[in-house]
Amino acid sequence: MASTKYGVPRGFRDFPPEVALLRRRIIDVIEGVFERYGFDPLETPVIEYWETLKGKYGEEVESKLLYRFQDPWSGEWLALRYDLTVPLARFVASQVPTLPFKRYHVGRVWRHERPQKGRYREFWQCDADIVGSPYPEADAEVVDVVCDVMKSIGYRSFVVRLNDRRLLRGVFEEEFNISRYGEGKVLEVFRVIDKLEKIGREGVEAELLRAGLGTREVEGIMDTVEVSGNPEKTLSELEDRFKGNESVYVAVDHLKRMIDTSIYRDCLTLDLSMVRGLDYYTGPIFEVYVKEPKIGALAGGGRYDDLIERYGGPKTPSTGASIGLERIIDAGLELGLFNLERKTCTEVFIVSMDEQYWSYARKVADEMRREGLKVQVDLMRRSYKKQLEYCEKKGIDAMVFIGEKEASTGTLTIYIRSEKKRCEQTPLSEAVKILRQAAH
Amino acid sequence: MASTKYGVPRGFRDFPPEVALLRRRIIDVIEGVFERYGFDPLETPVIEYWETLKGKYGEEVESKLLYRFQDPWSGEWLALRYDLTVPLARFVASQVPTLPFKRYHVGRVWRHERPQKGRYREFWQCDADIVGSPYPEADAEVVDVVCDVMKSIGYRSFVVRLNDRRLLRGVFEEEFNISRYGEGKVLEVFRVIDKLEKIGREGVEAELLRAGLGTREVEGIMDTVEVSGNPEKTLSELEDRFKGNESVYVAVDHLKRMIDTSIYRDCLTLDLSMVRGLDYYTGPIFEVYVKEPKIGALAGGGRYDDLIERYGGPKTPSTGASIGLERIIDAGLELGLFNLERKTCTEVFIVSMDEQYWSYARKVADEMRREGLKVQVDLMRRSYKKQLEYCEKKGIDAMVFIGEKEASTGTLTIYIRSEKKRCEQTPLSEAVKILRQAAH
Repeated sequence: MASTKYGVPRGFRDFPPEVALLRRRIIDVIEGVFERYGFDPLETPVIEYWETLKGKYGEEVESKLLYRFQDPWSGEWLALRYDLTVPLARFVASQVPTLPFKRYHVGRVWRHERPQKGRYREFWQCDADIVGSPYPEADAEVVDVVCDVMKSIGYRSFVVRLNDRRLLRGVFEEEFNISRYGEGKVLEVFRVIDKLEKIGREGVEAELLRAGLGTREVEGIMDTVEVSGNPEKTLSELEDRFKGNESVYVAVDHLKRMIDTSIYRDCLTLDLSMVRGLDYYTGPIFEVYVKEPKIGALAGGGRYDDLIERYGGPKTPSTGASIGLERIIDAGLELGLFNLERKTCTEVFIVSMDEQYWSYARKVADEMRREGLKVQVDLMRRSYKKQLEYCEKKGIDAMVFIGEKEASTGTLTIYIRSEKKRCEQTPLSEAVKILRQAAH
Repeated sequence: MASTKYGVPRGFRDFPPEVALLRRRIIDVIEGVFERYGFDPLETPVIEYWETLKGKYGEEVESKLLYRFQDPWSGEWLALRYDLTVPLARFVASQVPTLPFKRYHVGRVWRHERPQKGRYREFWQCDADIVGSPYPEADAEVVDVVCDVMKSIGYRSFVVRLNDRRLLRGVFEEEFNISRYGEGKVLEVFRVIDKLEKIGREGVEAELLRAGLGTREVEGIMDTVEVSGNPEKTLSELEDRFKGNESVYVAVDHLKRMIDTSIYRDCLTLDLSMVRGLDYYTGPIFEVYVKEPKIGALAGGGRYDDLIERYGGPKTPSTGASIGLERIIDAGLELGLFNLERKTCTEVFIVSMDEQYWSYARKVADEMRREGLKVQVDLMRRSYKKQLEYCEKKGIDAMVFIGEKEASTGTLTIYIRSEKKRCEQTPLSEAVKILRQAAH
């Protein structure tokens, strides 16, 4: 403990400026896309009553992954939010907004996972949800907004794995009458299948047997979840094979319309093994992957038609997506889509050659800031040389020099490092123009 | 409990879109000002080890206000951050960045206060700190950046109350040899004086007596803290009165230079009763007030030269400010500086007259989004009339109509509500121009 005492807890991180600047740039892109699709911001507390979260995600989540604690004063059980969807449902149930309610939310969530590549205990989700529409157009828009984010960030190739829980349910029903095990077992099976990538086929089979399913049923499940490929073709095959099954019919019809509506239909692939880990999904679900790096899903989402009702709200069909900020950044860094080279947002540093010019330097800084430039003056009473060293270390590109000549003529000398451009004794208004151009 | 079960804990809040949109606008202004002064973003976890926060704020804070809890798995004691300054100090001590390290941070903090006007248990602070400079220029810049924020948000008149803990310390020393009570008592006296506005003169006197001070000492303290007014004049008077007291001399000199350097010196007033409640301050301190509404300090800050050292870092003199987002918004709403009328950021709604135009409508939406417009299409399969009702309820100003004429000619009909402007069968590129103009 002693050595980590003044660190941060395991799985938590500080983001120094070079990382924070990149994160803001990416968040700006994401929020920009969300807003262009008509999503508005909603903010909820990071702490919820434990009662609010209870029973929404599945047993394992609740017992092993949720940060739960007692309010030190009231003794009430509280929890750190595990996702942004449940708080949204809780909010909508209590306020019943004009529908559709399209909201986005970029915020932290907490999960007590084993920290590893792309997996942290405190991490950010970027969610966009459409509350109130039962139609496949809404599901398509949610997928589109995620794909648009991927493209806007710079990802050139990615795959959206698509499935529908009603489809799986219908197939399982048809093949071995799964409903006789009860609803809890169905959700359990979904959660086990979700681990396929993590624990492999044998692991899943073992867990399903342990869950009380028969060997033949387990085989049937494994055969089913191996179905994947071109969605239109695969869906038609499933439709033919399970003719008359209402659940399969409804799911196939919904998915077909959803795919047909999507602008990014070329990125979609059907994958029956992709079931998502959370209990609240009721319809179409999806996850977004890149081939490299192997970092898990960068985004995912789906339809949850019952969740709001469970908070005492009216039945309100809803669908949404969640983008993992850390994964999208970690993968993007590995792929070279962006880097951490920018260390400061400061555009201009005003170098005073001597103490007697400080007040002129501050006046110039004040004027430039009014013009929107990001400006630093020396606050350390450093020598000319030390000021230059600071600019170099920080990567500040433009320097303004103030010495006797400049102070006496009310002008400035400018040096733009990247352009190796030097302008002597420039009037302030002219200097602002040059510096503004250099900053863009 | 039953009724609040699906609400949020007391003192916590949801921010629906109209509030969230205003908050972002204000945060954008604040961050914009911070960046123009050369501050860069830093992000830290909302959870810190209890050990990190312990002993930094004062006894009362730690026993009554800090959200502390045990990690459910490791049993380690954790705490929700109480401010953004201590995490900064912890970060700097572990990383030792290039100095000066100018960072800003807009984020949540938690305090178990009694909820009331302008006071919440989960609230946002907007901090800007200069780490590494011992000079009054740095303190002046911190005050200036806060004043610039106030002006940029729209506040026309406000007062910055200024003080210096060394000044108080020197006066107390001179008048009744306070150091014989030990350092703990000095901090306790500061914390009691900080409650002046809250519990009144009599309350403070009673608490000081209870703290073990004599009647004459309490009187001396009360007389001292009543000193306020024009800073230059008052400082000179204090200097004359306490000639030869090193602590007073150093503080007066520092404050004079700070005031002299500040662009906003006309907003400054000296107020010896303003001591700030937290233990870590060591030098100049300040708070920002408006006459109306009476909501407490909108911002405050000060110098803390020892804090980083306490985390094992090198001695690193630092100074900073914290703006209370909720207060600045609550007060601004009361003063009519801004309002909550904007309910959505959507600029354009595409009204389909019939199902057969959906795909054209989506194509148009896609094109407009590429052009940067914020666009919604119908996702509810609503009638023409219902779509219009939705636009009205949401306050969406621009509508694009797609019916037979438009679909067959590949054009659009536009209606801008606020301008009562109608353009029939406009080509897409022309429509984008009109809509973009209307949106600004």
